[in-house]
Amino acid sequence: MTIHFKHIAIIGVGLMGSSFALALKKKGFKGRITGIGRNKKNLIKAKRLGIIDNYSTSHAEGIKDADLILLAVPVGQFEAIVGNIRGGIKKGAIVTDVGSVKALIVKKIEPLMPEGVHFVGAHPIAGKECSGISCASADLYRNARCIITPGPNTNKNALKTIIALWKAVGSKTLLMKPEAHDMIYASVSHMPHVAAYALVNGIMKADGKILPYGGRGLRDMTRIALSPPGLWRDICACNKKNILKSLKKFSSSISHVTGLIERSDWDGLEKEFIRAQEARKLLGSD
Amino acid sequence: MTIHFKHIAIIGVGLMGSSFALALKKKGFKGRITGIGRNKKNLIKAKRLGIIDNYSTSHAEGIKDADLILLAVPVGQFEAIVGNIRGGIKKGAIVTDVGSVKALIVKKIEPLMPEGVHFVGAHPIAGKECSGISCASADLYRNARCIITPGPNTNKNALKTIIALWKAVGSKTLLMKPEAHDMIYASVSHMPHVAAYALVNGIMKADGKILPYGGRGLRDMTRIALSPPGLWRDICACNKKNILKSLKKFSSSISHVTGLIERSDWDGLEKEFIRAQEARKLLGSD
Repeated sequence: MTIHFKHIAIIGVGLMGSSFALALKKKGFKGRITGIGRNKKNLIKAKRLGIIDNYSTSHAEGIKDADLILLAVPVGQFEAIVGNIRGGIKKGAIVTDVGSVKALIVKKIEPLMPEGVHFVGAHPIAGKECSGISCASADLYRNARCIITPGPNTNKNALKTIIALWKAVGSKTLLMKPEAHDMIYASVSHMPHVAAYALVNGIMKADGKILPYGGRGLRDMTRIALSPPGLWRDICACNKKNILKSLKKFSSSISHVTGLIERSDWDGLEKEFIRAQEARKLLGSD
Repeated sequence: MTIHFKHIAIIGVGLMGSSFALALKKKGFKGRITGIGRNKKNLIKAKRLGIIDNYSTSHAEGIKDADLILLAVPVGQFEAIVGNIRGGIKKGAIVTDVGSVKALIVKKIEPLMPEGVHFVGAHPIAGKECSGISCASADLYRNARCIITPGPNTNKNALKTIIALWKAVGSKTLLMKPEAHDMIYASVSHMPHVAAYALVNGIMKADGKILPYGGRGLRDMTRIALSPPGLWRDICACNKKNILKSLKKFSSSISHVTGLIERSDWDGLEKEFIRAQEARKLLGSD
């Protein structure tokens, strides 16, 4: 597929934004990519590396004439940024995002769109625990699932374009209602991130010096605790109810195994472990 | 270092046992390795692959004339096996293990040693979520930490030999009291395994169909839930008190973040995340 945009503005030149730019260029995108951010040094570096073609530290300036605007900053910043740029968005442009929460974003961002500008929410299930352009990769989105979350007001053509765009960078697209997305990802991503941070803190509470004794299992299990705290704070704030529900299910699951161990119910414990092992196989390994 | 044993008997030809055999052969071990287990098909396969030189489905038979006996079965089986073979162990032989718990093992196995036979406990911090000889690797122990846990009764020469043996297969050896080992590994390995199984079950409880939506973060975090349930049941039974203590610290850490989210204390939550991120850096990434 050819990507027909002439000018793409990426707000937030971090891991997600710059990987998107790299992926577009790898797929032969011939248009112009403007990177927008607050950190000029980072933008200069991104340009020098050929990730973006121009840059601007001004949102209003950077998005001028853009046919596509990608929001790739922490979700907590979306509303203020869109409120700030909305007057300058070109008619016919599409605004999209890579945020990990969707319902609140769609609810807040959609009404801010000027006439003739369409918002389509998206959440590529790709990421790394490291952040910034030094971790960026043209292949980050390849073979990754990308959830696209149209609502009743989503423009059909804009939706088609966004689906085609993510397919072009190699993602497997999947449509989902924003609310369904947030419920599912609270359980399979947001809560596990919170749990990973809590696991590290729980171990540190036991003894501040023992963490380095951990092996590969612990490294794997806590790797996502290296994720940017500000980003995950925003996600928790935007998907609070679902994350709390999911945390409660996890807590009760922890209480359950704790009880089995307390009662020395080893058969019961092994059954729990077998159930988890069987279920985990659904995720595959890599 | 040359490994001076003539005959090594490995009880349990799974991931740990066969990786140990492969590592010895890679390091030029010229003696004979007997694999002992209940599954004859597995033993035949191990011999065909050159992992072991002979095999026996009889413990008593297989350990005859062995200078070194390695226990590489789940820790719950140690006592019965050693009770069974102790009459036939050659004078001067060393019995060692790769078990993930140490205090109870040392306490139970040491008194079973006949005169002139020495037990030295060891716990190589290496493993994979997959089990069996098909996952075995000559490099499993290379650059891995190996905790060796002498007690007051441990024979000094046997200890030296076991240290040299693990160094020979490339491990970084570290001496620790069995009790200290169990306290530390309850927090950095045993509890996280229990938590990983509980995490999978917690997500399944929320909705039995959503697990496959998880991305790399969830795959990493729950990978150890693929570990053999029977093995981890035994570990929980043998290190019950420490694991319960550690589970309680983790639970309270989960309650704490849950409370912060409930109260929408986003600054407090971000601080927790930052604390965890900083601590996690101590573990390194790979």
